[in-house]
Amino acid sequence: MRFSHKHLLGIEPLAPHEITMILDLAERYVDLNRGHAKHGDALTGLTQINMFFENSTRTQASFELAGMRLGADVMNMSMQASSIKKGETLIDTALTLNAMHPDLLVVRHPHSGAVDLLAQKVNCAVLNAGDGRHEHPTQALLDALTIRRAKGRLHRLSVAICGDIAHSRVARSNILLLGKMENRVKLIGPPTLMPSGIAEFGVEVYQDMAEGLQDVDVVMMLRLQKERMDGGFIPSEREYYHRYGLDAQKLAHAKPDAIVMHPGPMNRGVEIDGTIADDINRSVIQEQVEMGVAVRMAAMDILARNLRATPQEVMA
Amino acid sequence: MRFSHKHLLGIEPLAPHEITMILDLAERYVDLNRGHAKHGDALTGLTQINMFFENSTRTQASFELAGMRLGADVMNMSMQASSIKKGETLIDTALTLNAMHPDLLVVRHPHSGAVDLLAQKVNCAVLNAGDGRHEHPTQALLDALTIRRAKGRLHRLSVAICGDIAHSRVARSNILLLGKMENRVKLIGPPTLMPSGIAEFGVEVYQDMAEGLQDVDVVMMLRLQKERMDGGFIPSEREYYHRYGLDAQKLAHAKPDAIVMHPGPMNRGVEIDGTIADDINRSVIQEQVEMGVAVRMAAMDILARNLRATPQEVMA
Amino acid sequence: MRFSHKHLLGIEPLAPHEITMILDLAERYVDLNRGHAKHGDALTGLTQINMFFENSTRTQASFELAGMRLGADVMNMSMQASSIKKGETLIDTALTLNAMHPDLLVVRHPHSGAVDLLAQKVNCAVLNAGDGRHEHPTQALLDALTIRRAKGRLHRLSVAICGDIAHSRVARSNILLLGKMENRVKLIGPPTLMPSGIAEFGVEVYQDMAEGLQDVDVVMMLRLQKERMDGGFIPSEREYYHRYGLDAQKLAHAKPDAIVMHPGPMNRGVEIDGTIADDINRSVIQEQVEMGVAVRMAAMDILARNLRATPQEVMA
Repeated sequence: MRFSHKHLLGIEPLAPHEITMILDLAERYVDLNRGHAKHGDALTGLTQINMFFENSTRTQASFELAGMRLGADVMNMSMQASSIKKGETLIDTALTLNAMHPDLLVVRHPHSGAVDLLAQKVNCAVLNAGDGRHEHPTQALLDALTIRRAKGRLHRLSVAICGDIAHSRVARSNILLLGKMENRVKLIGPPTLMPSGIAEFGVEVYQDMAEGLQDVDVVMMLRLQKERMDGGFIPSEREYYHRYGLDAQKLAHAKPDAIVMHPGPMNRGVEIDGTIADDINRSVIQEQVEMGVAVRMAAMDILARNLRATPQEVMA
Repeated sequence: MRFSHKHLLGIEPLAPHEITMILDLAERYVDLNRGHAKHGDALTGLTQINMFFENSTRTQASFELAGMRLGADVMNMSMQASSIKKGETLIDTALTLNAMHPDLLVVRHPHSGAVDLLAQKVNCAVLNAGDGRHEHPTQALLDALTIRRAKGRLHRLSVAICGDIAHSRVARSNILLLGKMENRVKLIGPPTLMPSGIAEFGVEVYQDMAEGLQDVDVVMMLRLQKERMDGGFIPSEREYYHRYGLDAQKLAHAKPDAIVMHPGPMNRGVEIDGTIADDINRSVIQEQVEMGVAVRMAAMDILARNLRATPQEVMA
Repeated sequence: MRFSHKHLLGIEPLAPHEITMILDLAERYVDLNRGHAKHGDALTGLTQINMFFENSTRTQASFELAGMRLGADVMNMSMQASSIKKGETLIDTALTLNAMHPDLLVVRHPHSGAVDLLAQKVNCAVLNAGDGRHEHPTQALLDALTIRRAKGRLHRLSVAICGDIAHSRVARSNILLLGKMENRVKLIGPPTLMPSGIAEFGVEVYQDMAEGLQDVDVVMMLRLQKERMDGGFIPSEREYYHRYGLDAQKLAHAKPDAIVMHPGPMNRGVEIDGTIADDINRSVIQEQVEMGVAVRMAAMDILARNLRATPQEVMA
C-alpha cells in the first residue's frame, strides 16, 4: 500500500486506504506532541514555505508547528504584504518561489482552484490549506481523526453538518471524506446556505435541526461567516441562533453520546451555545485543534517520503 | 534551593533566592551570547510560542533570540492580525493554542491580569512579557542583572526611578524586585504621574529631581508615553524635559559613579539628554538590552527544567 | 587569496578575485539547493537578523532561506512595525540590535548610505540588501553568476541595461561589477531616467533600444517604478512599452543567443513582453532567483569565516 499522490490538494483524489494511512501515522505524532521531546527529523534537510494569500492564524500556526517539530526549515510568507501588491501574477509568484527550491509548499488562497493551478507550475509537493469554496483537506482529515478516536471507528456513523454549507470548503471536504469512508451524512441549514446539486453527493438535506440531528453520532457545526448576514442569506444573528445555533434542546435529538465539533474560531451564542462548547463530555473542539498539528505532520511526512523516493526533477 | 513556580508571571511571587538563581544562570548566558557558538540545546525538543497582543519589537526579538539560541522551536503569533478580529475570546484563543502543545508561552497583553488569567487555562509554562500596568518581570530582572554587574552587588543601593511611575509596569516590577533585595527606592515624578497608595511599597516619593537624585547609585529613567501628553498629565515635552528630563546638571546630584538606565526606546531630548545616553562611562542602556536576552534564556531554561521534572499533564 | 572585508556593503570595494570567490562558492550551493538534503551547518551557532526598513518579500525570503539552510538562527524584524514609530533613531535601533549580539545583519533601507552608517556602529558583519539608489550587491552577484553560467564566462561580454537607470541600485551595482570584470556595458533609457555624470563609469549611453541592443550578449531589463509615471519622467505605460519595453522586434537586434534578465517582480506588458519572459530559450529570470539564494549563502558563509577568524570584539 502506498500513497500515490505528489500533492495533497483535496480529499477527492484520495483512496480510503490513503486516508487511513495518514490517520494512522498521525496517531503516532499525537503522542510525540504531548511530551517534552517533540522535535524530530522526518523533514530535516527540507524547506517548507507557508504561502497564505488569506489570513488564518490558527491554520498557519498548525502547519508551522508541524513542520518545525519534524525538523524542516519553515518560512512564512504573508502574501498580502508581498509582490502581489506590485502587480505580479499568481503564476509569476509561484515560479519565483519554485526557483528558491522549497520541498513543501503550503498554500491558502481565496479562489477555488488556485492551489491546483499553482501545483501544476512547481516542482515541490503542494499542500492545500484551503482554497475558496473548494477544499480544505487537512481540516477534513483532522476531523476524521478526532471522530475515529472518539467513536472507535470512522464508518457507519451518522454525521450531521450544520450551518453555512454552501460557502464552506470545510463542509465540502468533510462530505467527501465521510462519504468515502461509508458514513451517513446529513446536511442541515437554511435553503439559502445549501448548495444546489448537493444530492449528487449522496447526502440527506434538512432545514430543521430537530429533524436532522435525530440519532446522529456526530454534530459538526460550521462557522458562520458574518459577511453573509447582510447579503440576504441570513436574517440576523439572533434569528440564526434560534433556528440553527446548537443549544441543549436541539442537541437532545442526537444520540446521548454524540460528540460536538467546530472548526473554530467560534462565535459563541451565534452558531453554538458556550456551555455546550465547553462541555468536556460532549465537545471535542480542543481535540480537533490538537489533531490538526498531528495530521499535518503526518501529511507532510508522507509527501516528503514520496519526494525523496522519486528521481529528482531538474529545473528548467 | 529550587525555583518553586510553574510560570513567571511577575516579580511579586518570587523569593530573593529565586531572583538570584535566575541572575546567576543568566551570567553564563551573557558569555555564550558574546561568542560565535551561541546555539545551545537547553530547550531542544520544546516549542515556544510568542503571543503578543501589543506590538513590541524589542521585547519580542529578545525572547525570540533567547529561545532560538537554546534550541527551542520558536513561533511568533501576531495577535492583532489573528482570530481576535474574528470575535474569538482571549480564553478560546488560549485554549486553542494550548491544544497545539506549546511548552513555553510568552505573552504580552494590554490589560493588567490578562496573562495571569491565561496561565490558569493552559498546561504549559507562561512568561509574562508585560501586562497592562501590572508587571514586566523580565525587564526588572534584566535591570537587576545590569545593576549587579555595574555595582558588584544588588542590595543596599540607592536607586531613583524617574518619570511616569503611575502607568509603568516596568517601574512596578522594579520597585518590587529592588525592595525584595533590600535597596532604597526613590520615586521621582510629577504628582499626576505618581500612583496613589505608593507609600505602602516602602518607597520614598519626590517631585523634584535635584532632591530625589541626591547621592543615588542608580538613575533609572522611564519612557514617557507621549499619549499622556494631551491627557492633562503633562504640560508639554519641553516643560517635561526642563523639570524631569535627565541632563548633566540634574545628574550631578547623584553619586559620581552613578549609572544611568533606560528601558528603551528612548525619546532623546524628552526624558533624557542624548549626550548622557551615549556616555559610556555613565550609561548602561546598551548593556540592559544585552542582559535582556541572557535573562530570558535563564528564565526559560529554569521553567523548562521544572516542566520536564513534573509528571506530564494529560489533556482533557 | 582572501576576502578582505568585514561587511558586504557594495560592489565598489570588491576586488575581481573576491567577486570570483563568492561566485565559485555559490556554485556549490546551487547543487545543494537542488537536492532534498539542503540543511548544512556553515552558520550553525550564529544569529542572523534581517532588518528590512522597506518591504521586499523576495529578497527577504532569499536571505532567510539562505541563512536557515546554513544552520543559522534567523530572525526577521519588520522595521515598519517597530520602534521607529516610537521615534527611535536609526542609530539607536542599530545599537539596540547590536547589543543582542547578532553575527550577521542583513539590512535594507530606503536611504542611500544608511547601511554603511549602520555598519560603522555595530560589531557584526553587515550585508547590504539594498540602500536607496546606492547599491544592491547581492543582486549584482546573482546576476553575474547567472550570466557566467549561461555564457561560460564573465568578461568581454556586451551587456545592455535598459530602463530606469537613474533610480536603480540594481543598475548601479551591476555597472560596477560588470566594469570590474571587463565587460562592455551599454545603458539604454529615456534621458529623464539616465543619471548625470554616468559617462565616468566607462559605459555607453543610448536612447534607442534598436541601436543599443545591437549585438549584445545580455539584455538586462529593469523594473519600472510606477511612481515615476506621474513625476514627469515617463509619459505613460503604453508609450514606455512602445519605446523601451522588450519585445521580439527589439530583441532581434541582440545576438541570436542573447539571454534576457529581469530582477523581478515583472510588470508584464510594461517593461517586458510576457512571451519573452516565459521563453525558456532566452529568459533566465527564474534562474536569477535560484542563483540569489546560492549567492547569499556564499556571501554569508565567507563573512562568517572572517568573523570567526578575527579576535572577538568586546562590547562597550
